[in-house]
Amino acid sequence: MPRDPKHNVLFEPIQIGPKTMKNRFYQIPHCIGAGSEKPGTQAANRGTKAEGGWGACTTEYCSISPESDDTHRVSARIWDEGDVINLRHLNDTLHSHGALGAVELWYGGAHAPCLESRAVPRGSSSYASEFEYMSYCHESDEDDIKDLVNMYTEAAKRSVQAGFDLVYVYGGHSYGPLQWLSKFYNRRTDKYGGSLENRARFWIECLTALKNAVGHEAAVVTRLAIDSLYGPDGVEVGDDGLNFIDLVEKEGVVDLWDLNIGDIAEWGEDAGPSRFYKAGHQRPWTDEAKRRARTPVLGVSRETSPDDMAQRITEGRLDIIACCRPSISDPFLPKKVDEGRVEDIRECIGCNVCIARWEIGGPPMVCTQNATANEEYRRGWHPEKFTKTSSEDSVLVVGAGPAGMECARVLGERGYDVHLREAEAEIGGRVRKVMKYPGLAEWGRITAYRQIQLDKLKNVEVHTGVGKMTADDILSYGAEKVVLATGSYWALDGTSCITHNPVPGIDASLPYIATPEQVMMEGKETGDNVVVLDCDGYFTGVSLAEYLADQGKNVTIVTGLGGVAPYTHFTLEAPNLHRMMHEKKIHEKTLHWVQSVEEGMAILYYLFRDGYKRDGSPTLGKMPRREGTDTVEIKFDSLVVATGRIPNSELCKELKARKSEWADNDIGGIYQAGDCYAPGLIADAIFEGHRIAREFESSNPQHPQPWIRERQIWGHETYPKISDREVTG
Amino acid sequence: MPRDPKHNVLFEPIQIGPKTMKNRFYQIPHCIGAGSEKPGTQAANRGTKAEGGWGACTTEYCSISPESDDTHRVSARIWDEGDVINLRHLNDTLHSHGALGAVELWYGGAHAPCLESRAVPRGSSSYASEFEYMSYCHESDEDDIKDLVNMYTEAAKRSVQAGFDLVYVYGGHSYGPLQWLSKFYNRRTDKYGGSLENRARFWIECLTALKNAVGHEAAVVTRLAIDSLYGPDGVEVGDDGLNFIDLVEKEGVVDLWDLNIGDIAEWGEDAGPSRFYKAGHQRPWTDEAKRRARTPVLGVSRETSPDDMAQRITEGRLDIIACCRPSISDPFLPKKVDEGRVEDIRECIGCNVCIARWEIGGPPMVCTQNATANEEYRRGWHPEKFTKTSSEDSVLVVGAGPAGMECARVLGERGYDVHLREAEAEIGGRVRKVMKYPGLAEWGRITAYRQIQLDKLKNVEVHTGVGKMTADDILSYGAEKVVLATGSYWALDGTSCITHNPVPGIDASLPYIATPEQVMMEGKETGDNVVVLDCDGYFTGVSLAEYLADQGKNVTIVTGLGGVAPYTHFTLEAPNLHRMMHEKKIHEKTLHWVQSVEEGMAILYYLFRDGYKRDGSPTLGKMPRREGTDTVEIKFDSLVVATGRIPNSELCKELKARKSEWADNDIGGIYQAGDCYAPGLIADAIFEGHRIAREFESSNPQHPQPWIRERQIWGHETYPKISDREVTG
Repeated sequence: MPRDPKHNVLFEPIQIGPKTMKNRFYQIPHCIGAGSEKPGTQAANRGTKAEGGWGACTTEYCSISPESDDTHRVSARIWDEGDVINLRHLNDTLHSHGALGAVELWYGGAHAPCLESRAVPRGSSSYASEFEYMSYCHESDEDDIKDLVNMYTEAAKRSVQAGFDLVYVYGGHSYGPLQWLSKFYNRRTDKYGGSLENRARFWIECLTALKNAVGHEAAVVTRLAIDSLYGPDGVEVGDDGLNFIDLVEKEGVVDLWDLNIGDIAEWGEDAGPSRFYKAGHQRPWTDEAKRRARTPVLGVSRETSPDDMAQRITEGRLDIIACCRPSISDPFLPKKVDEGRVEDIRECIGCNVCIARWEIGGPPMVCTQNATANEEYRRGWHPEKFTKTSSEDSVLVVGAGPAGMECARVLGERGYDVHLREAEAEIGGRVRKVMKYPGLAEWGRITAYRQIQLDKLKNVEVHTGVGKMTADDILSYGAEKVVLATGSYWALDGTSCITHNPVPGIDASLPYIATPEQVMMEGKETGDNVVVLDCDGYFTGVSLAEYLADQGKNVTIVTGLGGVAPYTHFTLEAPNLHRMMHEKKIHEKTLHWVQSVEEGMAILYYLFRDGYKRDGSPTLGKMPRREGTDTVEIKFDSLVVATGRIPNSELCKELKARKSEWADNDIGGIYQAGDCYAPGLIADAIFEGHRIAREFESSNPQHPQPWIRERQIWGHETYPKISDREVTG
Repeated sequence: MPRDPKHNVLFEPIQIGPKTMKNRFYQIPHCIGAGSEKPGTQAANRGTKAEGGWGACTTEYCSISPESDDTHRVSARIWDEGDVINLRHLNDTLHSHGALGAVELWYGGAHAPCLESRAVPRGSSSYASEFEYMSYCHESDEDDIKDLVNMYTEAAKRSVQAGFDLVYVYGGHSYGPLQWLSKFYNRRTDKYGGSLENRARFWIECLTALKNAVGHEAAVVTRLAIDSLYGPDGVEVGDDGLNFIDLVEKEGVVDLWDLNIGDIAEWGEDAGPSRFYKAGHQRPWTDEAKRRARTPVLGVSRETSPDDMAQRITEGRLDIIACCRPSISDPFLPKKVDEGRVEDIRECIGCNVCIARWEIGGPPMVCTQNATANEEYRRGWHPEKFTKTSSEDSVLVVGAGPAGMECARVLGERGYDVHLREAEAEIGGRVRKVMKYPGLAEWGRITAYRQIQLDKLKNVEVHTGVGKMTADDILSYGAEKVVLATGSYWALDGTSCITHNPVPGIDASLPYIATPEQVMMEGKETGDNVVVLDCDGYFTGVSLAEYLADQGKNVTIVTGLGGVAPYTHFTLEAPNLHRMMHEKKIHEKTLHWVQSVEEGMAILYYLFRDGYKRDGSPTLGKMPRREGTDTVEIKFDSLVVATGRIPNSELCKELKARKSEWADNDIGGIYQAGDCYAPGLIADAIFEGHRIAREFESSNPQHPQPWIRERQIWGHETYPKISDREVTG
């Protein structure tokens, strides 16, 4: 298909300082867990995006000095020659696809806990971080300020050596010079504090130094939180935000503005989860800034629609469309627009499991929609290319939930004859339930994308509404290989990770007790006063609570975990979930679990009700978890139980017990993907479906092939070398 | 000094299967953040202990397969040839000092979240982990069991290739085969479930396989949680615990028992913080086991007294003294016992900041007492050896808190003439306050060790009770170099990380408001109803609350953080702090902060009281943090404010302002160490004091020298290679 002419504007080149970007698709900084320490992973991940048409790709935030060390989280670093070597490999890869490379030079101040370096960060004043409450910075004197500016300059020079085309001073998310610009941090009374001109001085000194040092070879970019959302306590767009743009442009030291909003403690206001923020939620701020700025402006807003993107350029509201999560979900988005294949775009669902991995620390990024994210190098997976099989095997995939849909799609791309069979009338599996929760409708894109792709694959047949298959059905079906993807269900009896036992009195066949499926899919009625018993810890319990509160019910969440939905802290949903619960008067009782239930009442206990010992010998057997007299009663009309998940594994067990019949039926292998093997994230189920299809010819695709690990092997070089050290006592 | 004869028993060799350990000092597995991916760090850390006399040293827990991947936490791994190379370097180092190398082969089951590998663990049954609530394992069938046993066997073979002398099957902390032995996890009805014999079968199969595969070359060890502290729900010493020992010994498949107690979700019951558990708290269990076992037994209990250690051997209560934290705090403990220098032992204080880094994930281990821990390779620091200076400079250290004491000690060891001057009558600084908190008396060892060492150093003078030094005093003192270590104080006005602002109405000069110093050191009285306002997040607020509750006061902790003392989750103190608060009826109000205070009352607000927006544009400037009408009142007689710390930096600022006078006074440099530069952990202050002394001849010892980083450099080899992969689609 030819490109839609209304998208042409997205493919116009643009000048950025001394560099030309070939189009308007810009992959802004985001973390993947590779940094400059896993160079193969780093280059392949961003390189795949460059291949997919992005005109510029950046690293994650890149530390300029060990004084800015975000360990346990993984940033890039450009501290020494070893980093330059590793990042040069990234830029070589980007350039081979015609894309520019950008580096977001980062100094975290008090927000960098420096747990690896053990260095002490310097800031505008002395304060503890509101993001890392244990971490304080040192108030800089004028020597310190010179040191800091010099750190940026030296890092910029190393960046150019590494081949970067765009060099940032990063002042979004409350980092670096924003701690000088914002009154929230800066309490100085010298020429670096007080008036806007004074608070802007440090930032402008950094930009000027970069412009002088590398400006003829690289574009100088700055990321600015145009509004920190603190009202007059911080940077407001209508005040310091726009006026700062004027000040910088007067000096002529920036070639491109990268604008966003918010801080680091609640950076979900920037990287908004779809539960609260749809595409374009930052437009009010970037619109204002674009009207004021004379330099090109880029902005983010989780845009996935090329029509919207083109409109923003055409209307002069942005010069460049910056994407983070949409580029993870579909690295080939620009190419698909270019080729007029808009319907093939795998749209970001805004679940933020990508971000969750950074928040957790070290682990590599994952993506619900794109199972190949981060796997480009280490497993050799390409998001759009598949090795065609030479096998003639036909494959039966049982269950069209996340794992089954993805497995059938990838097997189809690989050339297998596939039958995907779903008991229910529609494909989607648990996505059908999840997308009904308040705010989670966009999760339906998981199904929408796969529906379109499955429809295009002539060698994949999708059969819906076929009812549950029995072992006999499967054995006699005629397929050489079988993938079971039959999912899981919520425990009917209160089994949870806390006790691993059923709870006396919980039985979801009773009228006053209901599982999430019963509430959302089967229409089981609940009374006015509802207790939601949650030990899942992610979205299910809190989503049910909101769903029921929206019906006017009085809802209390009881959880054995330390907070309601603790995993949503990692997905950046937690702060607004707190606000939602406050507004909708949803009560919570944390660190409590349920000892027993009867109609109308649950007997709860505090998990730490047992005594402790100090000095002397502890009591043998001190933590009986289930019995005790120190209890709390809670009344309810209905009890909703999201306590734990049970895999639908009986079918597989029966088929394995009848293994002797496989050969007679020409069945060469039966595998399990997703929740029916072990319950997990939707992202995990899609990954497993994908992986099994990619590795379908291995001796046992049930278990993964090794991946390429990137780490120091003893005897190989380290940086810096011992001889680089000035002194040690 | 000669060795005390009563300690001779600690230096008797002992046979362990085919190996002989030269003495009874055994460094059991503990994490340092190196694993098999930072081979230099790993070998130097354990190698220093071997040099210090430990007869055997182990790695941290060592994963046998990518199915057991604990990322974000760092374990060792023995998955491939790259790991073998790296771990062989460790064993070469250990052997060069006559120590044995041990490897704790680990399969985590449901407790391993597999965030890097994305593999799915297998267990005895299907369950979610009570430690990692998002992680479920797959219920193994008989093929899976064969796979698992084979994983252990192959890992054991690689271990022997890497030079290990002792090979573990790790079944402590609810890991690996304990999930088969314990009824808490194992719900099977086949020959691997039900009776003890059946539940023990998997474990015994693993041990038997190891004995057959490597038993002639290596000792087979198993770590057993002899009591999981769940009562009859789990393993109890008097039931499954001791009976399991009998079963295994009947098979003759174990050469050494490594015994501990507890689970993983509350593993502070094993690695007990000194706040709750003193040395020897596990003796009741290991005593029972030792009476039953015929094979040698080792046990842990944070023993630091050689008298106690020797007594346990002499009385036949243990065969080997295993240490974890005491070996971190003093790697040379055995040598000091051997040389009759018992007073030089740097005793562990049981603060568990070492463990906190593992709990946080990735970061390298730190130790409050031993600043060289983890720095042996990357900074080249030896705990007992110091490069003698050739400088004739005399050094004035101002302030004998943690940073000052350590800086003076290390400068003294390096041969500098040092005057350490302390305003108060005693050295110790903030340790004097901390050791008064309930349960924290052992923290006094920080001072006790340094007092003894300073007394021994003839070139260090300690002057106490000299009052606060002025800038004039310092300029005229006659020292060529000055280190300021003047500490910090608790904000008098309610300044915190939440708002970075004073709170209207908070003024610690008022009779009804007090800081921690005022309560603990100055005897400021508090009324019957006390509100503790805490934004420190570590031990101060909760310790004050307990101190006051012990005086019969009614105490409520109000914090802007997500829980009371969240950092104590990482130090494993949190569960028993919860129990303590429950028992002593200390109330809590979390996620609240204070808007203003008047006599008798504080106006609080919920941090997430502001509305959120779903769909449509958010409001510009949506998070004013300080004003609002949605508030909660709380009454008090006294308000104790542990909101944030303020560095004592005025002296340094004045001295820097008078830099022109330095040369006239022959002052070559003035540096700041510890809290007066930026508040931090006591461990950080000691580290900074130590580092400045080690790097005292660098161009600016205020800022650290680079350390040796260990990571992949592009172009060097990776394992496994792409060609090792069986297949990819």
